[in-house]
Amino acid sequence: MALLQEFEAIVGADYALTGEDVARWSKDWTGHYCAEPGVVLRPASTQEISQIMALANAQRQSITPVSGHTGLVGGTFAPGGVLLSLDRMNKIHDINTNTRTAVVDAGVILSSLHDAAEAEDLIFPLTFGARGSAMIGGVMSTNAGGSNVLRYGNTRDLVLGLEAVLADGRIVNLMSALHKDNSGLNLRQLLIGSEGTLGIITKAVVKLAPKPRAYATAMVATPSLEDALTLLNRTQDATGGAVEAFEYMPRNYIDVYMDRFEGAREPFDAPYDINIMVEVATTTDTDVNETLLEIMSDMMEEGTVLDAVVAQNETQRREMWERREAAAELAFWRQPIVDTDIAFPLDLVPEFFKRVGVAMTALDPEHEPNFVAHLGDGNVHYSVYPSRDDLDLKEKIVESVEDIVADLGGSFSAEHGVGLSKLNTMRRRKDPVALDMMRKIKSALDPNGILNPGKLIPD
Amino acid sequence: MALLQEFEAIVGADYALTGEDVARWSKDWTGHYCAEPGVVLRPASTQEISQIMALANAQRQSITPVSGHTGLVGGTFAPGGVLLSLDRMNKIHDINTNTRTAVVDAGVILSSLHDAAEAEDLIFPLTFGARGSAMIGGVMSTNAGGSNVLRYGNTRDLVLGLEAVLADGRIVNLMSALHKDNSGLNLRQLLIGSEGTLGIITKAVVKLAPKPRAYATAMVATPSLEDALTLLNRTQDATGGAVEAFEYMPRNYIDVYMDRFEGAREPFDAPYDINIMVEVATTTDTDVNETLLEIMSDMMEEGTVLDAVVAQNETQRREMWERREAAAELAFWRQPIVDTDIAFPLDLVPEFFKRVGVAMTALDPEHEPNFVAHLGDGNVHYSVYPSRDDLDLKEKIVESVEDIVADLGGSFSAEHGVGLSKLNTMRRRKDPVALDMMRKIKSALDPNGILNPGKLIPD
Repeated sequence: MALLQEFEAIVGADYALTGEDVARWSKDWTGHYCAEPGVVLRPASTQEISQIMALANAQRQSITPVSGHTGLVGGTFAPGGVLLSLDRMNKIHDINTNTRTAVVDAGVILSSLHDAAEAEDLIFPLTFGARGSAMIGGVMSTNAGGSNVLRYGNTRDLVLGLEAVLADGRIVNLMSALHKDNSGLNLRQLLIGSEGTLGIITKAVVKLAPKPRAYATAMVATPSLEDALTLLNRTQDATGGAVEAFEYMPRNYIDVYMDRFEGAREPFDAPYDINIMVEVATTTDTDVNETLLEIMSDMMEEGTVLDAVVAQNETQRREMWERREAAAELAFWRQPIVDTDIAFPLDLVPEFFKRVGVAMTALDPEHEPNFVAHLGDGNVHYSVYPSRDDLDLKEKIVESVEDIVADLGGSFSAEHGVGLSKLNTMRRRKDPVALDMMRKIKSALDPNGILNPGKLIPD
Repeated sequence: MALLQEFEAIVGADYALTGEDVARWSKDWTGHYCAEPGVVLRPASTQEISQIMALANAQRQSITPVSGHTGLVGGTFAPGGVLLSLDRMNKIHDINTNTRTAVVDAGVILSSLHDAAEAEDLIFPLTFGARGSAMIGGVMSTNAGGSNVLRYGNTRDLVLGLEAVLADGRIVNLMSALHKDNSGLNLRQLLIGSEGTLGIITKAVVKLAPKPRAYATAMVATPSLEDALTLLNRTQDATGGAVEAFEYMPRNYIDVYMDRFEGAREPFDAPYDINIMVEVATTTDTDVNETLLEIMSDMMEEGTVLDAVVAQNETQRREMWERREAAAELAFWRQPIVDTDIAFPLDLVPEFFKRVGVAMTALDPEHEPNFVAHLGDGNVHYSVYPSRDDLDLKEKIVESVEDIVADLGGSFSAEHGVGLSKLNTMRRRKDPVALDMMRKIKSALDPNGILNPGKLIPD
């Protein structure tokens, strides 16, 4: 096509891929959204992206941005379409130790930023299982969460400034490194989490944090989720809010993990229903291990903690993290699956589990649940393996979970994004006035609807 | 007018004020934006506001929302126009101690929320001098900052959910109490800081924080601002980021304070050029006073701290705070004044002061500066009393400060908002593509341009 040649003229023939060369972008991690794109463009600069978008806009050619391609919601699904990959824009421009900020391109791999920050005795606190492949662009376009949100916030809390290319090819410069900046509507927060529908984020200024001097990491078994939340509150109060992760793994999660991973170890000698991984970090010389041990020992006496193991060294700490970070892999190996990414006010998580068990059993007595939760954020990844591959049943499971979520004031979409997978849910569950506002904003900023069409905002 | 009767039918005749009854809304705190509104409507509910907006939209009648009326940028200036006051919607609906959240109406006075939270051993951390009159609605519409931003963030970091009435009267329900919620474009962050141009915020879910068990508050004199920043970094590192306020008052600020306030006391026996107020808070049993004393004593030995006084009790602490919180009053008592509200990357604040002194002296050798800074946020309130009341000179002063701000990567608008006072600056300094995006969003959501017209977004 003539358009392809024009794209080639912008990025160079080597970086406008077709045919076999696009295989890498045809696979999808979840197995749900596998499709071959028609073309993959790999621009080297914001200027090239600007030219691509100006051309695409003039020709009404849809463009779907992609970076690490590790998403779970089909956000980069574009069969036969044009993908714009940020992977060549992978430079860390600056790590400023005075202001504790970094300037990074959208194609920088999350773990590369982790490494660069650590070399300066700082951390970029956002982290999750796919950090070795996920890139900053995708992290920002989905407002990714992960395991440290409790302490450091979501992606949007860690981004001070950004640069983006709009649908018509214009570049918007919001590259501020400031902690206070009230100069007009907050376009930065509008672009973060917009899943490539309003603009292509090309660069960012992100916050770094001091590297903790010490971690205290433990596996704790509690009789109930309510007791687990007591553990969370006590640990937060005793450490001045220094809890970095508070993760819930039920018995059957541990079973599947033991089953699937060679050399995997049980967290405790005895099997427990509720297994919590808690991590506290400190930048001071406080002995956080001791603080944690004290709380757990008090709670054992009260009977609100059943068992506890504290990591004695980095190897044991890594083992605890690996068990938790295997979650996505553990969920998606088996089909059919209905997966969710939902959030609740903290104190209503136990109530959700009470209700969802009853509801699922009523719908499909043979179903098997598989779940894990960032309990400290109220964020639950609740999956169900239905007993049969039946679209109608799967849809009923989704709606039933959504009903409970709505009833408890929760969100049907916590940290993975909406993409394609939650588009129907957006349509039926999101406030209709909010949906209308989103559609109006989308039309105003991308009147030809060429930026990642069919994602995030239902028609 | 017929429209007035229709408004009266909605809010009741007692709550549609005209003539003498609007005097309270005719005065402006800064003295720059005094004007009598034509009508002040005082609705009692979101439903009434919805009806008002539907009517106003149909009649193309502009509406300017107002709450505490303590703004500094003319954001509620509407000579002869219709003000919509949120003051009757002043209910605190809920303080949830489990989830540490509060549900509040837009007309709740900031200090009332402080009191309600404290009664539950929690705090709403946002605070500033006008807290006894400022209301949540205005706080949110301007994304207010203040003295605790360093620790707890700006308003937008403290709001989990909100409800707003749009230009056409529809109510958008974003009342989430969740810490993770990626369900579409972030309309909440778009509405916060939009200064009433996109919608009228009527209600919010805000985050509360545990009430600190102890504060350590001190006045510290340092030889240079660089030394002050060393003090900040060391205190942050030693306390695990527990610095709540880090405020800079220069010598002439203290002089003016001593002059204007009866019974005011000098911070130190000797006069110093650089006076820092630092406050650390803890929710644990750590002795923060001791930590602070150790750091200051080390720095005195190094010669990087000249003098230090630690508050021995709450009375002494309050005295330190009163000195700082008199800032707005100290600035605006004298005319003519050019005031600014600017922000820099932390490490460039000293450079700003070096450059601005030279620039101001070149423009007006007889000028008198008056300034104070939230140094920990890089936020400077730099005012100048020019030697003569000359519009051209004042404009040159503004542009000269703006030049330095732009050159240092700063913001011309940090925490007070844009309103009317920085509209020209927005026009000439904000990225033109960003301005165009703002105009498009404004047109999409308020096509008749009736919501607080002429504010925030320049034509």
